[in-house]
Amino acid sequence: MTIAFADPQSLDHAALEEGTIFAPRFDAHGLITVVTTEAGTNDILMVAHMNAEALSLTLETGIAHYWSRSRKALWKKGETSGEMQEVVELRTDCDQDCLVMTVRQTGRGAACHTGRKTCFYRRVTLSDDTADLEDTGLPRLFDPKAVYG
Amino acid sequence: MTIAFADPQSLDHAALEEGTIFAPRFDAHGLITVVTTEAGTNDILMVAHMNAEALSLTLETGIAHYWSRSRKALWKKGETSGEMQEVVELRTDCDQDCLVMTVRQTGRGAACHTGRKTCFYRRVTLSDDTADLEDTGLPRLFDPKAVYG
Repeated sequence: MTIAFADPQSLDHAALEEGTIFAPRFDAHGLITVVTTEAGTNDILMVAHMNAEALSLTLETGIAHYWSRSRKALWKKGETSGEMQEVVELRTDCDQDCLVMTVRQTGRGAACHTGRKTCFYRRVTLSDDTADLEDTGLPRLFDPKAVYG
Repeated sequence: MTIAFADPQSLDHAALEEGTIFAPRFDAHGLITVVTTEAGTNDILMVAHMNAEALSLTLETGIAHYWSRSRKALWKKGETSGEMQEVVELRTDCDQDCLVMTVRQTGRGAACHTGRKTCFYRRVTLSDDTADLEDTGLPRLFDPKAVYG
């Protein structure tokens, strides 16, 4: 089974923003941005991309699939690390060019390839006219060298 | 004052992912994706983009500025609607190509141009091989026709 998504060009503005037809607006590269959050805490785990195939597989299987822009390949999250994501809910935004996916993070609870729970482990600090980064102290839940070799 | 950001090309992989130098990786259009969340609830309000000028202004003023891709213009959020966003914290992700910004949403508490608190007011439902959208019932906090004319 493959899910066929509606063509957003076929919808007028009102239908796109207020209607019940799901017509994801993939960009020129065929991708849509996905923000993945953790069920319960609402913590943002990661931001990644899906093409139509990854989105279809995610909906069909209930397991998060993305498109890896660096590897240029379908990416079943957790296939190497074991850190799979079970989909709880998927939402689209007003103009359907972005998704928010709520998941249960399995494995050791680390969504980030650095071994941390989330990719957002550094905050920006401003001092005079210089912006720097500060580690928030998020622990590593696995050793990336041991997992990815 | 304008903040000059480090060139990500000048950083090696370890410095980019684990270092204290903020080197936002703007894309080919000079933009970086920003996920804006509400302080306290962690609710995702919107996903938008910043260019270097918008990011610099956001850090300098503590008020969210974006780049509007549709209007191709700097966009001080809330300038028309009054729904300004006060920045509480800004984080970057592991490879510095995405930001999460935590804000206090002022005005009527509506980040979305439809008048709702968040842009993510519809969830995807799957029935057989068809994906549809379902309104989550989020109320409108202002009338967009009255605000935007």
